[in-house]
Amino acid sequence: MKKAILIPDSFKGTLSSAQICEIMGREIKRHFPDCAIVGIPVADGGEGSVDAFLTALGGEKIYVEVAGPYFEPMRSFYGLIDEGRTAVIEMAACAGLPLGGERKDPSKTTTYGVGQLILDAAQRGVKKIIVGLGGSATTDAGCGAAAAIGVRFLNEAGACFVPVGGTLKDVVRIDMADAAERLKGVEIVTMCDIDNPMYGLHGAAYVFGPQKGADPAMVKFLDDGLRHLGEVIKRDLGRDLTEVPGGGAAGAMGVGMVAFFGSSLQMGIETVLDTVDFDSIVAGADAVFTGEGKIDSQSLRGKVVIGVARRAKKQNVPVIAVVGGADLDVDDAYGEGVKAIFTINRLPQDLSISSAFSDVNLGFAMDNILRMMK
Amino acid sequence: MKKAILIPDSFKGTLSSAQICEIMGREIKRHFPDCAIVGIPVADGGEGSVDAFLTALGGEKIYVEVAGPYFEPMRSFYGLIDEGRTAVIEMAACAGLPLGGERKDPSKTTTYGVGQLILDAAQRGVKKIIVGLGGSATTDAGCGAAAAIGVRFLNEAGACFVPVGGTLKDVVRIDMADAAERLKGVEIVTMCDIDNPMYGLHGAAYVFGPQKGADPAMVKFLDDGLRHLGEVIKRDLGRDLTEVPGGGAAGAMGVGMVAFFGSSLQMGIETVLDTVDFDSIVAGADAVFTGEGKIDSQSLRGKVVIGVARRAKKQNVPVIAVVGGADLDVDDAYGEGVKAIFTINRLPQDLSISSAFSDVNLGFAMDNILRMMK
Repeated sequence: MKKAILIPDSFKGTLSSAQICEIMGREIKRHFPDCAIVGIPVADGGEGSVDAFLTALGGEKIYVEVAGPYFEPMRSFYGLIDEGRTAVIEMAACAGLPLGGERKDPSKTTTYGVGQLILDAAQRGVKKIIVGLGGSATTDAGCGAAAAIGVRFLNEAGACFVPVGGTLKDVVRIDMADAAERLKGVEIVTMCDIDNPMYGLHGAAYVFGPQKGADPAMVKFLDDGLRHLGEVIKRDLGRDLTEVPGGGAAGAMGVGMVAFFGSSLQMGIETVLDTVDFDSIVAGADAVFTGEGKIDSQSLRGKVVIGVARRAKKQNVPVIAVVGGADLDVDDAYGEGVKAIFTINRLPQDLSISSAFSDVNLGFAMDNILRMMK
Repeated sequence: MKKAILIPDSFKGTLSSAQICEIMGREIKRHFPDCAIVGIPVADGGEGSVDAFLTALGGEKIYVEVAGPYFEPMRSFYGLIDEGRTAVIEMAACAGLPLGGERKDPSKTTTYGVGQLILDAAQRGVKKIIVGLGGSATTDAGCGAAAAIGVRFLNEAGACFVPVGGTLKDVVRIDMADAAERLKGVEIVTMCDIDNPMYGLHGAAYVFGPQKGADPAMVKFLDDGLRHLGEVIKRDLGRDLTEVPGGGAAGAMGVGMVAFFGSSLQMGIETVLDTVDFDSIVAGADAVFTGEGKIDSQSLRGKVVIGVARRAKKQNVPVIAVVGGADLDVDDAYGEGVKAIFTINRLPQDLSISSAFSDVNLGFAMDNILRMMK
């Protein structure tokens, strides 16, 4: 083996993508000391995404003071890659749930800081901004972020305000006139791996509200607000986004990115593959090692392993998936370019026990896969 | 792949060696339809050993009426292989624990029937008899079996009797004069995978007595009997067998086989490899698939995977071990001829759950190993 690509998803709750790259790389070096190794930690849009891009591609971390989830001033950051032409932002860096500490109130939290980060990057002259959704404390449908770039939300009295989850119902008119100019010439791509719609039983409030601190009454209240905002967007912006898959991501920030920022929603892995120019990197490689916490029929719908396999297949590079678990209904994966799937469970143990050994178990599995390849 | 050898140990409590051969063979046929497959279910000496040899080599099953564990007449059997030159006997076929049903009294049970099977095979003209130990209801140190071939055990009064566990203490003299002639010219090999000595805290009574129905008082009583018999053997037969590793196997039948039958004690896998002429079979094979319930540092001391690997290594045939679990201290296995080790745990589940899925999990693992080999 002369060249190997490592591009695993994280094993949620046990190993980060970067840790997996490190373990895989170490084992490859042991068996194939002369092998060139390209490690690409996969960002999923959530916390750690900026670092993942910077690790994979190099670049610069820019620190900016912006508004935190409760409008408190805080130091946040984004990444500059591609020689300063592209910015990578993770919304968790200023609207993330952990930032609120004990405080959890999705009716009051804002994505205002995310808009400030976007604006800062745009003013720096980037041509493209990647916004990662995930881990948010908010349910403001991205209205805070929109307000930060100049979108005006007006209430019954005609006053301009910054809506939060609890005041979405007060929005009677949306005015985008001032906003467009500020992001002119900048392409915005939003990483979004879930397909929940804006509102309803599968929407942002019902599915993700409780983990952000909403009790059943607040869930209903937030959902009503989103429903109302969907109507206003439809009327004032002329677009019905209420059923867009992923619109409900990150407190309906998905809808906000489409409505107020003209962004597309894209599977995280596709964004990563495009951004790292995977098609060039994989050319001439002997093998691609990928993986995810669990491969199942869901994995065939745009998750990391399949996303990677489809691209590698075009260049006939075999993809080996190393996973925490595998369902039996994954036969289609082989047709998509996955050569073989190996699980890391060295002993028959419940995850509650084995998760403490994920690192050695992954090392053991990789060791033996590589022995087979010799 | 043109030729593959399957020679797995059982996964204790989940899959028999024959079942594993079947699953492995099915997956190989699917990926390599033209591959010649030699399946060798591994006998461990216990229940099923005769069938394992007959499956691997073909032959004839001979049914004989002999004494059961409580001297009751019963129909038992042994196998004839190697064109009738070799007999294979499993002691469990007439002295096995399940044969007593609810009744469990290791002070009263006998291996008399085992001696009858041995005698029947010898009278049929076989040149070699393989006796498998394991799963016994007895603690008679093989005295019953010895009596059946003419060894005379005398008590204080000078009367000849058939000792059982509870009457070993009554043996004051052993007379082998009549026995030797009956087994003349027959080589006897005993399969024995444990190394417990005849008596003491690691001996037959203390370690295995309780599972045969002995309470603490009876354990002590049986151990005293074995200790006494050991002294008589030392005095009358001139051999101190009290510390022979494996002497305590199957109610100290290990000692009896050595003392009364002139047998050697051999690791089961070595017996199997010799008997199936593994060195010839493995010649020209592309791969050997073996496995065991769990590979650990114990495995490096004569268990199936290592036994197979050492032989295959001499002919440079790679050995792939597919196992239920693997400890981390098995690096030496690679030096012994194991190319790679794969575990079958498709999901992070406790054995109490995953054992119900051992068949599909093994199939999944084999499927992916074979995909790698393509």
